This record gives sequence, C-alpha cells and structure tokens, in this order.
Amino acid sequence: MDESSDRLALTDLLLEYCRLLDENDPDGVAELFSEDCVVELADDPDGTTRGREEMRRRLPERYSRFAATSHHLSNVQIEFEGSDRARALSYVYAWHRFANGAEGEIWGRYQDLFQRTPQGWRIHRRRLRVAGARNFDRRWYPVERG
Amino acid sequence: MDESSDRLALTDLLLEYCRLLDENDPDGVAELFSEDCVVELADDPDGTTRGREEMRRRLPERYSRFAATSHHLSNVQIEFEGSDRARALSYVYAWHRFANGAEGEIWGRYQDLFQRTPQGWRIHRRRLRVAGARNFDRRWYPVERG
Amino acid sequence: MDESSDRLALTDLLLEYCRLLDENDPDGVAELFSEDCVVELADDPDGTTRGREEMRRRLPERYSRFAATSHHLSNVQIEFEGSDRARALSYVYAWHRFANGAEGEIWGRYQDLFQRTPQGWRIHRRRLRVAGARNFDRRWYPVERG
Repeated sequence: MDESSDRLALTDLLLEYCRLLDENDPDGVAELFSEDCVVELADDPDGTTRGREEMRRRLPERYSRFAATSHHLSNVQIEFEGSDRARALSYVYAWHRFANGAEGEIWGRYQDLFQRTPQGWRIHRRRLRVAGARNFDRRWYPVERG
Repeated sequence: MDESSDRLALTDLLLEYCRLLDENDPDGVAELFSEDCVVELADDPDGTTRGREEMRRRLPERYSRFAATSHHLSNVQIEFEGSDRARALSYVYAWHRFANGAEGEIWGRYQDLFQRTPQGWRIHRRRLRVAGARNFDRRWYPVERG
Repeated sequence: MDESSDRLALTDLLLEYCRLLDENDPDGVAELFSEDCVVELADDPDGTTRGREEMRRRLPERYSRFAATSHHLSNVQIEFEGSDRARALSYVYAWHRFANGAEGEIWGRYQDLFQRTPQGWRIHRRRLRVAGARNFDRRWYPVERG
C-alpha cells in the first residue's frame, strides 16, 4: 500500500467507528481497536478503557443510556510515523438522544495513535478532548488552549 | 478515469447537492439526479420523489418553507460496484431557518446509489435515515440499530 | 507537486486554521495567511482585516471574548486556477463558548482564494458567508440564494 491508500484506510477506520457506534454494534466497534488499546473518553473513574476485551464488555451497558446517537466526523489530519504507525487529529460533533428522551451534544476532537496489524489498521491509543458539551455530567479532557 | 478520480467526483456530487440546495437552486439540484431516480426523504405520503422531472417540479414549493438552510456533509464512505455503479453512506447535519423564523435541525445519513451516465455520475437512489430531528413533523426512516 | 498533493495541502491549510483558532494560537493562525491578505468575516466596521500584521495584532483581543471554540469544517470544494492559485468553498459549523458562559453558533461557508508562496499555500482572500447564527450580533454576509 502507498501512503494514499493508507490515508484512505485510516479515514475509513475513523468513520467506521462513528457508523458502528451509531448503529449500536459494540462488537463491531471493538474490532476497530488493537487488543491492547487504551481509550480515554473522559478524565473520570469510568473514563478509561484498557484493551479490546474490556471495551467489548463495557460498551453494551455504556450505550444502553442512548436511544440514538449521531457522530459527525470532520477535520481529519493524519501524520505517519514510519510505515506501521500513524497519528490523527479529527473533530467530532456528536448528537445524542438519551433513553429518557433528553438530548446531549459534544463538540470535541479525537487524538489517535494507529497501529498497523496483520488484520489492518487499528486504533491503538485514543483520547477525546472536549471543547464543549451540553447535558453531559463528565469530567472531560479539555482542548488545550494557548 | 481511475478510482481516485471517481471518488473525488462522487464526493463532489454529494457536496454539490448541499451547495445548490442551500443556494435555493432547484434546477441545479435536479440535474444531480438520474432521470429515473427514486429519492426517499421520509416515510410519509410526501416523502418519496420519483424521477428528475417530479423533483424539478416539486422542489421549489418544498423549499419555499425555508428562508435559509445549511447542509453540513461528512463521514463519506464510498464503495464501487463495477465501473459504472457505486454506493455511498454519508452523514448530514442540516440546519434550517423556516420562513416563519423558527429553526429546525436534522442529524441524519444519506444512503445513495450512484449511476454513471454519459453526463457523469448521478444520484440514482437516495434514502435519508434520521437519527434525530428538532422541529420537524415528519415520519423519518430511522437509522437502523442493533 | 501534483494536483493531488496540492489538494491535500489546501485541505490541511483549511483545517490548520480551525485547529489553531480553537487552540487560541493567534500567531499560528496569522501564519496561514498571505502578507497582503484580505479577510472579510462580517459586513460591519470591525469585519474586515487587511494584511497578516493587522490579523496578528487584532486576533488576541478578538478571541479574548471566547472561553472555547470548535470549528467543524466540511464540504470542501477546491478549484485550481493555474499552478499557483486556487479557490475553495468550505462549510463551517462553529460552536463558541463566550467568556461569560453563554454559547454562540454559526452555520456558514468560507469562500477562499489561495496563493502559493515560497513558504507554501496561504489564504489570500477569505469571505465568510453565514446561513444562520445564534447569539451573535453581527451583520453577516449572507449565503446568496436564488
């Protein structure tokens, strides 16, 4: 594969995460991560997931809070570190309908490290940084500002 | 054309739809569809448009409800089926100002089938699936969830 | 560079603007513009910035109004005019937290002219057109509608 194919594959990986999450397919989501991934969605006790198995186990309960979600991904910037590692910054605008009917919104960005595996590119490290949110009671990692 | 040019052309087709709709150019919008297109925007009596002529005829009245719109398209995933057909999933976050001043929002996704014609790629089948909406009284096709 | 590399570089330029603005890095933002740029954000006395120096001088005060921002860029359409000039239309959905805690939102589009310089592509002319906004008291350039 050349860099252009890898760029397409990595962008598609970011989009598959959104699609599968919004279709409530936890097993599909977990497959996008490396076996020993570390995913930091928030800076609170429940915020970090370590490993694909833990993700597979925890996603169903975590997403039972939502009746519907829509993760709009944009602003994808990719940098390669050798042939088997890459980093990306991407923006996400995520709309949520909670099970109780209320709405929640997040304006944030994913900081990702990808690893190429025999099965293809996987998300190896992820941190969500949040510029702003409505109706979420979490301790987010902030977007760093000068 | 190679696949990379087709990918660019199909993405541009999706973006032209947004641009022309937001500029209130119904004839321009209709040109993006195949002559025998089927477009399902909602699962209600007024929701399906059959053919470019019907689209051209109905769009002006349908969009007279809006004073302004802004269709933000992202999450474009394209799959080719042979050299003259392709499918895409894309996300749309659509903001609307109604003629009466109220605002409406939609968080959804387009499911598209494209056909290559002598005049270039056209949207042949489209279904809008909606994760959530504010201030719209329509019976939407839902995003399918596991 | 071929057109595909230029396309990537120009898209990245649009994204760097969002990233650096949201990280409150005015010097970084100013570097993305040509020395003699003209940037029209609104059709009011404070709306036009002429030249990189003026931008560098005015950005810190202008952005001190915000505690956080998130500029979600999409719908990028690029056209080349010879090898050293290009135009783009892109959509922006911009969320803002004001210093007083209130939120503001903009649904708009950037109309850009880029110039290739010895240091790379720079934004040479920019006009923001706004379809809609919440909690902003500005006289925007409207999106032109048929």
